Amino acid sequence: MLDPGRLSIHQVTLLPQCSTAQFIDVLVRNGVGCASLWRDKTREFGVERTARLVAESGIALSGYCWGGLITSPDRTEAAAARDEVRRALDEAAALKAPCLVFVAGGVDARDRNIADARARALDGVADLIPHARSVGVRIALEPLHPMICATRSVLSTMRLANAWCDELGADDIVGIAVDTYAVWWDPDLESEIARAGKRICSFHVSDWLPDTQDLRLDRGMMGDGVIDLPAIRRMVEAAGYAGYVEVEIFSQRNWWTKDPDEVVAVIKDRAQTAT
Amino acid sequence: MLDPGRLSIHQVTLLPQCSTAQFIDVLVRNGVGCASLWRDKTREFGVERTARLVAESGIALSGYCWGGLITSPDRTEAAAARDEVRRALDEAAALKAPCLVFVAGGVDARDRNIADARARALDGVADLIPHARSVGVRIALEPLHPMICATRSVLSTMRLANAWCDELGADDIVGIAVDTYAVWWDPDLESEIARAGKRICSFHVSDWLPDTQDLRLDRGMMGDGVIDLPAIRRMVEAAGYAGYVEVEIFSQRNWWTKDPDEVVAVIKDRAQTAT
Repeated sequence: MLDPGRLSIHQVTLLPQCSTAQFIDVLVRNGVGCASLWRDKTREFGVERTARLVAESGIALSGYCWGGLITSPDRTEAAAARDEVRRALDEAAALKAPCLVFVAGGVDARDRNIADARARALDGVADLIPHARSVGVRIALEPLHPMICATRSVLSTMRLANAWCDELGADDIVGIAVDTYAVWWDPDLESEIARAGKRICSFHVSDWLPDTQDLRLDRGMMGDGVIDLPAIRRMVEAAGYAGYVEVEIFSQRNWWTKDPDEVVAVIKDRAQTAT
Repeated sequence: MLDPGRLSIHQVTLLPQCSTAQFIDVLVRNGVGCASLWRDKTREFGVERTARLVAESGIALSGYCWGGLITSPDRTEAAAARDEVRRALDEAAALKAPCLVFVAGGVDARDRNIADARARALDGVADLIPHARSVGVRIALEPLHPMICATRSVLSTMRLANAWCDELGADDIVGIAVDTYAVWWDPDLESEIARAGKRICSFHVSDWLPDTQDLRLDRGMMGDGVIDLPAIRRMVEAAGYAGYVEVEIFSQRNWWTKDPDEVVAVIKDRAQTAT
């Protein structure tokens, strides 16, 4: 049984149905006390305006999603991408979000070199640390599923996230976001979550559908797939994580087509029965 | 530059275009000396008939694909699945294929327990060893991509394949199939390939397309994606593998729609320039 006070809903779960104002309204109306915001929507609505809306609503934020894609082999492109992450950190600070979810970036077709892409991502994070510290927003390194390694993130496992954190030596400002959908398959999951310990600063849940039809937009509601979500929640809690459980469901063929209040009602139920 | 004598083409690469007889003809006509056979096609054409055809053609076989799916939590189902693998081993022996590619099986929605599924798969392989030895066909454990973990294989990494081989202690009859498409993203790839050493008994190549649109049927031709294939080939060769390089491309939207001779011509070219 998840303490209902620990439930957070990620804006992307209602991405096509709701403007930012409508999204906050749905949460308030259904008694959900925490959200994670999607950057594109926030910029569309305006960062200051979003910050005011959130403050007035009394909704807490568990995160701001996302910044990154800094693996370009072109130095100018990579520097511009890091500047963009700095702006995202500034926005997260303005919103009073505790962390920015960091998506490393993929493998560039120009060099086809995954080891170099990883090295550039790690160097780039090191370069971003002073700015993150100055604005007080944690960089949440999020291992993403290997199926989006080419396009979105060469950070593919908890083990690699821990190795990066070891190298960076900045656990005060660089943490790890554990997303069940991205890491559930990992044979080393339990030991690497334990190793991460207090580095875990964000925990995202959704389920893996057996008949998955898309590499990014076909996540399942908790309880509809094959992931033992309570087991993974126990792992992160045993590692010391006691924060929000953030529901993040990209679902083009199902939940994105449904009424927002219905989606939130199902989430509240499944947070109790299947998370 | 790959020695052209080391090129093998997997039947699945021309799955919808060719019957088994047409497939063997295309290889002979284009001077390709080795193939891997697809079990469904082989049974459709007849095992003895296929064996005769292959023998008469002078084509060598690098493998027989596949047997497995033994992770059911139902004992009767699991026993039946192991019997089916024994039949596949018999067929591989009749064909004089050196190995049977082993696909572990997925996570059952009935128990949602990936750790148990892995334990059952490992126990099941142990149970199959006597039969594999008796017919002289190696079981090639193939780590498959985590994106098909739920449905096809809970054996998701080279590290886990090595751990299973360590436990089984049967390197004479249980080996590992390295498929670039399945493992290219793995941060531990180089060290785990080195650890595998002579366990590597099969090497499959295809490329990862940046705009991948399907979880199983959208593999790319070597050189069309982001995998550094020559680097992975160097890893397996440094580990001691000197066998066939097997081209295995499931490609519903591209190569499966093309003329078989054209596909083979491109493969022969890319085996030289991009593998």
